[in-house]
Amino acid sequence: MEKPIITDLCIIGAGPVGLFAVFEAGLLKMRCHIIDVLPQVGGQLSEIYPQKPIYDIPGFPVINAQNLVENLMEQIAPFKPTFTLGQRVDEISAPEPGRFFIKTNEATVVEAKVIVIAGGLGCFEPRKPSIENLIMYEGNGVNYFVKNPELYRGKNVVIAGGGDSALDWTIFLSEVARKITLVHRNESFRGAPDSVDKVVTLAKAGKIDLLLQSNVATLSGNGHLQHVEVLSKDLSKTNVEADFFIPLFGLTPKLGPIAEWGLNLSNGAIEVDTHDYSTNIPGIYAIGDINTYPGKLKLILCGFHEAALMAQTAYHHVYPDKKLTFKYTTVYGVNEF
Amino acid sequence: MEKPIITDLCIIGAGPVGLFAVFEAGLLKMRCHIIDVLPQVGGQLSEIYPQKPIYDIPGFPVINAQNLVENLMEQIAPFKPTFTLGQRVDEISAPEPGRFFIKTNEATVVEAKVIVIAGGLGCFEPRKPSIENLIMYEGNGVNYFVKNPELYRGKNVVIAGGGDSALDWTIFLSEVARKITLVHRNESFRGAPDSVDKVVTLAKAGKIDLLLQSNVATLSGNGHLQHVEVLSKDLSKTNVEADFFIPLFGLTPKLGPIAEWGLNLSNGAIEVDTHDYSTNIPGIYAIGDINTYPGKLKLILCGFHEAALMAQTAYHHVYPDKKLTFKYTTVYGVNEF
Ligand SMILES: Cc1cc2nc3c(=O)[nH]c(=O)nc-3n(C[C@H](O)[C@H](O)[C@H](O)COP(=O)(O)OP(=O)(O)OC[C@H]3O[C@@H](n4cnc5c(N)ncnc54)[C@H](O)[C@@H]3O)c2cc1C
Ligand SMILES: Cc1cc2nc3c(=O)[nH]c(=O)nc-3n(C[C@H](O)[C@H](O)[C@H](O)COP(=O)(O)OP(=O)(O)OC[C@H]3O[C@@H](n4cnc5c(N)ncnc54)[C@H](O)[C@@H]3O)c2cc1C
Repeated sequence: MEKPIITDLCIIGAGPVGLFAVFEAGLLKMRCHIIDVLPQVGGQLSEIYPQKPIYDIPGFPVINAQNLVENLMEQIAPFKPTFTLGQRVDEISAPEPGRFFIKTNEATVVEAKVIVIAGGLGCFEPRKPSIENLIMYEGNGVNYFVKNPELYRGKNVVIAGGGDSALDWTIFLSEVARKITLVHRNESFRGAPDSVDKVVTLAKAGKIDLLLQSNVATLSGNGHLQHVEVLSKDLSKTNVEADFFIPLFGLTPKLGPIAEWGLNLSNGAIEVDTHDYSTNIPGIYAIGDINTYPGKLKLILCGFHEAALMAQTAYHHVYPDKKLTFKYTTVYGVNEF
Repeated sequence: MEKPIITDLCIIGAGPVGLFAVFEAGLLKMRCHIIDVLPQVGGQLSEIYPQKPIYDIPGFPVINAQNLVENLMEQIAPFKPTFTLGQRVDEISAPEPGRFFIKTNEATVVEAKVIVIAGGLGCFEPRKPSIENLIMYEGNGVNYFVKNPELYRGKNVVIAGGGDSALDWTIFLSEVARKITLVHRNESFRGAPDSVDKVVTLAKAGKIDLLLQSNVATLSGNGHLQHVEVLSKDLSKTNVEADFFIPLFGLTPKLGPIAEWGLNLSNGAIEVDTHDYSTNIPGIYAIGDINTYPGKLKLILCGFHEAALMAQTAYHHVYPDKKLTFKYTTVYGVNEF
């Protein structure tokens, strides 16, 4: 076995909730190591909607998703968390109570007293359309997420999908791209009525092209994507110039390896006790989007609360002989490691 | 009866949690009226520690308490909450299910479909020392809270108390006031060891005067406070020049009228169901410091979560026939009233 990284809490998932857990743990003098399969921290915020404004983070009338992630990184810095990024946690084991081994797909091993699963939607993957040579153009014109809208400035972009993501990005990119074509296989959209109205208005004004009851059938281009061919229900074909093709058919949340660890699950989420967000296995906690309990809302602000209550109980695994007295940060400040 | 103010949710308490409840309600198209006995919004933050930094608001590595209140006011502005400040809610009644009347000590009446109690510590009052002519100097040199440290710049200040407030303000004001005298009736302090060390160091360096095993016995001055007389355990007397006397003996949390409304209480807090922070009376919710449940932490960030879950159920009292679909603010934005 590799020499393990030793820590108090091993946090699986570097989304906003996993990150904030470092802060709450740090206040109680517990060290954290975080593992995420993605190459960057921030979870859904950095991966799916980095440039979008969030309005319901308390105290911020509005904050850009990526900025929130950066603020959280600054907030936890005094507690010097360590990270293993770009690796998936595959296995956990507990040779004895209160001592866990956490192992990744690249054989990194972490030894911890507590496991905090903040795995969000799990190892999520975009749902892909079935187009023969799709893989060939991935990264060469085909993107499943809009990470940096500026990439599309002045370009010809084809978006496919009928939900909120497709509608939102069509509206947003209509002011950035040279031309947007939205392809949707049905006649009507699943997204918010407001957004549907806006897209229809844009199409009427000639600002975007709308191809309904249609699918993108083939991709072509010399190395990088140049054209897509759209096939309509009545079998007519349209050839569209396309520097980029963005299929937005949603994500398939794959709980992945987490499903195999003996945790009580319900609808693909981990059942927890709201007292401290503990799972059925002592020493393992689940916070953020990945857990479920009566009243659960998949909101960032809820995960923050869950992290705070988790830390209070986790403390007793790390310091079994100490009594915990509750303290305000205004009174005691933040004592960095 | 006065003509009632009609609203969807009547929120009792304009602390951070009551304020944020307006936002969560507003997202679900519910209107709010807030009542607070204090003349300003912000609860404990504005009343007890407006100029102190808070470190555990997620996304803010540090934020001044009063700034957090201002940010929350900006965040809820789109939902146009209305306020009754400087009045205490004394009575509530429900002539029929789903219709509440809320009445203040100045006979203001609010009619609401839902009551949200965000009363914090209740109508808290400072614990006062028993000094004969204390009342005479209240507002003329005697203050129970440090609201604006600048008031004390270049002044002679006597602080009394042995807990964290007394220690913290002694340390803080030692750089602001002309002279600080800290009077404490015991030999040792109850506050944080760190703060005790700092105070002792300041005293040794001659930066503050420390009078232990002593009490402030009498106040004198012509209209405004000028001197306090300190009596020590061995009955010796010290006359101290004092423009200000700040007794910091803590607050007496008085649940006040809320205790009479038939709500299930436990240790002076309202028992709630963590599913939606509902009380034993249908249509009445309790969020923030005033509620209790297994795992409860009196933290601002916890109250924010409680407000979010509360709003989901409150919705069904306000719109009994509508189905609620959960929406993200990044996707739907904030639609102002
Ligand atoms: C388009 C969109 C808009 C949204 N808007 C809002 C909004 O306005 N307000 C709001 O509050 N919320 C919003 N949300 C939801 C919000 O993003 C989530 O609630 C939040 O990201 C949950 O944080 P988390 O830390 O629990 O999980 P995530 O952000 O999902 O992070 C979990 C991390 O765990 C990692 N992981 C999972 N399994 C493993 C494994 N086995 N090994 C290693 N790593 C693993 C993942 O790679 C991921 O990085 C929105 C979501 C989307 C998609
Ligand atoms: C010195 C100090 C430092 C702190 N530091 C931190 C920190 O670092 N982090 C943190 O998260 N928390 C901290 N806290 C705790 C934090 O202030 C509370 O958790 C927070 O204020 C609770 O908010 P609330 O809205 O529930 O109640 P409150 O802020 O107490 O507001 C309740 C309001 O209800 C009003 N009210 C009560 N009864 C009635 C009535 N019958 N009629 C009309 N109005 C009524 C009161 O006047 C008050 O304004 C600290 C507290 C103190 C005292």
